[in-house]
Amino acid sequence: MYIVILAGGSGTRFWPLSRTARPKQLIAVVDGPTMLQRTVERVLPMHPKRILVVTNQLQAEESEQQLVRYRQQAPIDIIAEPVGRNTAPAIGLAAALIAARDPEGVMVVLPADHFIRDEEGLRTCLQRAVQTARNGYLVTLGIVPTRPETGYGYIEADMTLRGDGPFPVLRFIEKPPLDQAVRYLEARSFLWNSGMFVWRADVILDELARQMPELAARLEMLQFGGQVWDLVDMAPQIAAMYAEVAAQSIDYGVMERCRRVQVVPAEIGWSDVGSWSALPEVLAANDAGNVVTNCAAHIAVESTGCIVSGHGALVATVGVRDLVVVNSGDAVLVCPKERAQDVRAVVEALRVQGLDRYL
Amino acid sequence: MYIVILAGGSGTRFWPLSRTARPKQLIAVVDGPTMLQRTVERVLPMHPKRILVVTNQLQAEESEQQLVRYRQQAPIDIIAEPVGRNTAPAIGLAAALIAARDPEGVMVVLPADHFIRDEEGLRTCLQRAVQTARNGYLVTLGIVPTRPETGYGYIEADMTLRGDGPFPVLRFIEKPPLDQAVRYLEARSFLWNSGMFVWRADVILDELARQMPELAARLEMLQFGGQVWDLVDMAPQIAAMYAEVAAQSIDYGVMERCRRVQVVPAEIGWSDVGSWSALPEVLAANDAGNVVTNCAAHIAVESTGCIVSGHGALVATVGVRDLVVVNSGDAVLVCPKERAQDVRAVVEALRVQGLDRYL
Repeated sequence: MYIVILAGGSGTRFWPLSRTARPKQLIAVVDGPTMLQRTVERVLPMHPKRILVVTNQLQAEESEQQLVRYRQQAPIDIIAEPVGRNTAPAIGLAAALIAARDPEGVMVVLPADHFIRDEEGLRTCLQRAVQTARNGYLVTLGIVPTRPETGYGYIEADMTLRGDGPFPVLRFIEKPPLDQAVRYLEARSFLWNSGMFVWRADVILDELARQMPELAARLEMLQFGGQVWDLVDMAPQIAAMYAEVAAQSIDYGVMERCRRVQVVPAEIGWSDVGSWSALPEVLAANDAGNVVTNCAAHIAVESTGCIVSGHGALVATVGVRDLVVVNSGDAVLVCPKERAQDVRAVVEALRVQGLDRYL
Repeated sequence: MYIVILAGGSGTRFWPLSRTARPKQLIAVVDGPTMLQRTVERVLPMHPKRILVVTNQLQAEESEQQLVRYRQQAPIDIIAEPVGRNTAPAIGLAAALIAARDPEGVMVVLPADHFIRDEEGLRTCLQRAVQTARNGYLVTLGIVPTRPETGYGYIEADMTLRGDGPFPVLRFIEKPPLDQAVRYLEARSFLWNSGMFVWRADVILDELARQMPELAARLEMLQFGGQVWDLVDMAPQIAAMYAEVAAQSIDYGVMERCRRVQVVPAEIGWSDVGSWSALPEVLAANDAGNVVTNCAAHIAVESTGCIVSGHGALVATVGVRDLVVVNSGDAVLVCPKERAQDVRAVVEALRVQGLDRYL
């Protein structure tokens, strides 16, 4: 079994902690390992044959450094995309690399920037998915919804069958309006699209050949040398491939039109930690009602509902509620929780003002 | 003319920038020199014979270092009190030191932690006071009030005389209730007690002998050696003196009961910068309505009325009003402007929790 970690994302919503060269997956949103490290740590007990991390050239070195400590437990390859082309080319490239040595190898595709509280539960779901994937299915993990979220895509499953799944997927649904999301939550047969996939390398390549023939053709042109895993020499080939292929998500490019998709419902304390205001999903509030991480201490004088990330500093708040306070060492952010999405406006202002070192 | 700077104050209201060993007078509340350095810089054009800085043992070394750069322009002595005894013993000691070499030397006593926008105006007032002091008066500078402040003491002057003063002082008044402060503001003959004094060394020693005989007796026991200024050997004598003398302010101990006090009204853009919320008194708001100092930049997204001190970092605020945001490198404070006084509660919490390194 192979692990493919999609780690090339960029994002501004965790500014000032996340930066262009050190986005969310490469930072410790909460104390301890980074999101990428946590992603690796939670699959190591499954004894993967290899771990392939697909990232970009800006983040490759930092990714490499963060994963050095795990190399004794599993071989790890860092694949640096020359340019971002969404998930389909990244997954296709990983599938081609695996298929070249182990055509029926099962690959588990995981985003690098999600938080999962119940890691044992995740592994149980993945093991179940691996069994089904061996039979030629495309399997995805569907998160059991806990709220009528309008920010995620949904998967409708045929849950008339008994057991814990996998269940056949009836359809993929784009981000719904609120009333629809409420109905989905009540119906119990709708799951959040998590971006976690399990399938055999040859099976996904077959699907790509059928549904994304141009990408598949480019993948077939790749030369892998012998049975030895060595990606260093492949950079020019990968660059040539990325120069030709179109950006496309695997969801839109393959999953939504594929008939042999199954879904494993997952109740695993999942969160995509989409912004600072989502931190309470992954970290419990303290007695004062504040969520505090990476602080020497938080002195809260009549302050509650705050989200505080201190970069090792002490943070003191007096008489404030529901405020996000983040220190990154060279930058400090203060923002009400309900405006956490507007951190984008700060990043945009930095860009306009040419303050590139803070991007 | 001698300058005596009272620099031994401690205070918590500028936490986290101010600390026990680096209180307000030793920090740059606004960009540039520290409060102590500014105090020295604004009197250097008056060509003082010497500058005596009275501080405490915890702050002596930092004070010394901050003033090295001015030693070519005036001799500077740092006097470290072994224990704080309010202003009367500090001023008495300085007067005794000056009188030992230059009995009729005029000394100008200045607090080290006030801000003065019109420095030329200050020097003009001080020169006027020095003239009067030579004739044997005790002269003080009285700040012309700009608001009905209830946090300061007042001086009532006999301003029926013509000219810019000095005027005879009728009485000293403790911090008044608001209605009284409003009447003082309207009456125009009431001035804020600034803690700035000008007198001859022998004159203040005479007054001390009359009104604070115990302190005067201890001062008379001091041995100064020859005509050379050398304070190093005096530490044991000073320690012995401080062990014996009572804490007393010069206002209460001398000024309030003395008949030969004159006051020079001063309109010099004075502020004692009592807390973070007073920063707008000394630093103009920018176009966005925020007062910003020591920041690489302040990115204000729909934020106004804020006071931001960044320790060189970039600070971003989104959708907040009238907030104090201070970064000191190892600590961050966030607090509404109207609660700036409650920074004390943070310092108290640090003490209780044993977080001494942040005190």
